[in-house]
Amino acid sequence: MAGPVQSIERAAAILRLLAGGPRRLGLGEVASSLGLAKGTAHGILRTLQHVDFVEQDEGTGKYQLGAALLHLGTSYLDVNELRSRSINWADALAARSGEAVRLGTPLEGKVLIVHHVFRPDDTLQTLDVGALLPLHASSLGKVLLAFGTATLDPMPADGLEAYTRHTLVVREDLDRALAEIRELGWGAEVQEMSMGDAGIAAPIRGHGGLVVGAIGLSGAVERICDPRGRPLPALIALLREAARAISRDLGAVRW
Amino acid sequence: MAGPVQSIERAAAILRLLAGGPRRLGLGEVASSLGLAKGTAHGILRTLQHVDFVEQDEGTGKYQLGAALLHLGTSYLDVNELRSRSINWADALAARSGEAVRLGTPLEGKVLIVHHVFRPDDTLQTLDVGALLPLHASSLGKVLLAFGTATLDPMPADGLEAYTRHTLVVREDLDRALAEIRELGWGAEVQEMSMGDAGIAAPIRGHGGLVVGAIGLSGAVERICDPRGRPLPALIALLREAARAISRDLGAVRW
Repeated sequence: MAGPVQSIERAAAILRLLAGGPRRLGLGEVASSLGLAKGTAHGILRTLQHVDFVEQDEGTGKYQLGAALLHLGTSYLDVNELRSRSINWADALAARSGEAVRLGTPLEGKVLIVHHVFRPDDTLQTLDVGALLPLHASSLGKVLLAFGTATLDPMPADGLEAYTRHTLVVREDLDRALAEIRELGWGAEVQEMSMGDAGIAAPIRGHGGLVVGAIGLSGAVERICDPRGRPLPALIALLREAARAISRDLGAVRW
Repeated sequence: MAGPVQSIERAAAILRLLAGGPRRLGLGEVASSLGLAKGTAHGILRTLQHVDFVEQDEGTGKYQLGAALLHLGTSYLDVNELRSRSINWADALAARSGEAVRLGTPLEGKVLIVHHVFRPDDTLQTLDVGALLPLHASSLGKVLLAFGTATLDPMPADGLEAYTRHTLVVREDLDRALAEIRELGWGAEVQEMSMGDAGIAAPIRGHGGLVVGAIGLSGAVERICDPRGRPLPALIALLREAARAISRDLGAVRW
């Protein structure tokens, strides 16, 4: 049985490092961040540069992510079945609800947005595809947690981050919310990620019934919720209908 | 001086392989495509899977690209200066011209689309960001070739692909077209990639005056060109104005 290849793991760690934080780093910063000797880090960076996964700025000598990653990233989207099966349903859900629709899948202790349909109005909106949301403070993430598709074990060393005063940062409160989501079959996030915003999400099941992702509506809290902060039943119904339809398309028979 | 790390080069080759062609491959197909022993390919694939660059289908055991690449790809866009400096100008160009605007940069003998503003109407359009266009059959690619930012050396082993009967597949014809682009300062592609479509593009210069990318308009040939197939002067003027403005923003002083 072949073991993991250390240099590839290190290369992936460098790419993740460049994708977070300041995004342009010198050789010394890369080496010390990952606890590598400068010569080792340099050999990996040169190879990553050679395959266009990393670019080096001519002026400063600093490293940043390279163009080949963009093509690989969009090629991933082309092959992602959750996304391809959901596109039509997500469009219809956005049209019927009048809200933005996003699809999420777990990645590295977060939710990766793999599809985003803008709210159908003329306002300027930013495409969230490729963005990572926190599991405990997004409706998509809470649904993935509730159905075991994502996990907070091990817990982040510095605890659950409080984005607003409504974010569930105590593990017991979060566990109670997750149990409720399992019972209801959908989950909400009301001003837990940013004040004024709310979202609801429902699980998408794949072949065999396992939850493989989540679909959600998000927008201004006064459009998603009633004045007492409870998600509107009409939106929940539309959302669950879309989630069930996608699950059926993915082969979840009892759905 | 550190040399390239072989296992990282091989990992990159596997990812490129999965991004092209059928996009879901078994271990044997990966190994034989790259001339690797099965054990070697398996070790690399397992490591790529471990870092979420590759996913394995549970049913078929086949490998496909993984979710981490999507986040890296969109992080590359966030850090791409050509794109960030161009966004406002590209929006304005699409609004003024009424056509789709795309920005390209060279990658692996092709043009990588790093930004795409849809034609400002209500038709359904597909986002081309992350797509690769051929150098010799796109206006963006011809401009990158003309100004030495991309190269066809070595020539593709099977020659230049003919997408339509108008594609320039004879090297001398292409070289003549490139010389004309250098003289005019812009380039066109008229039904060379697909019948009914045309595009014009202009170079974007960076700090020091080097061409770092290209910006182009594309659409139905009858909107881009006059009845004799010549690009409309009004569109060329708008395009060149945008290219000059972006070049100035990027620090190309004499532009």
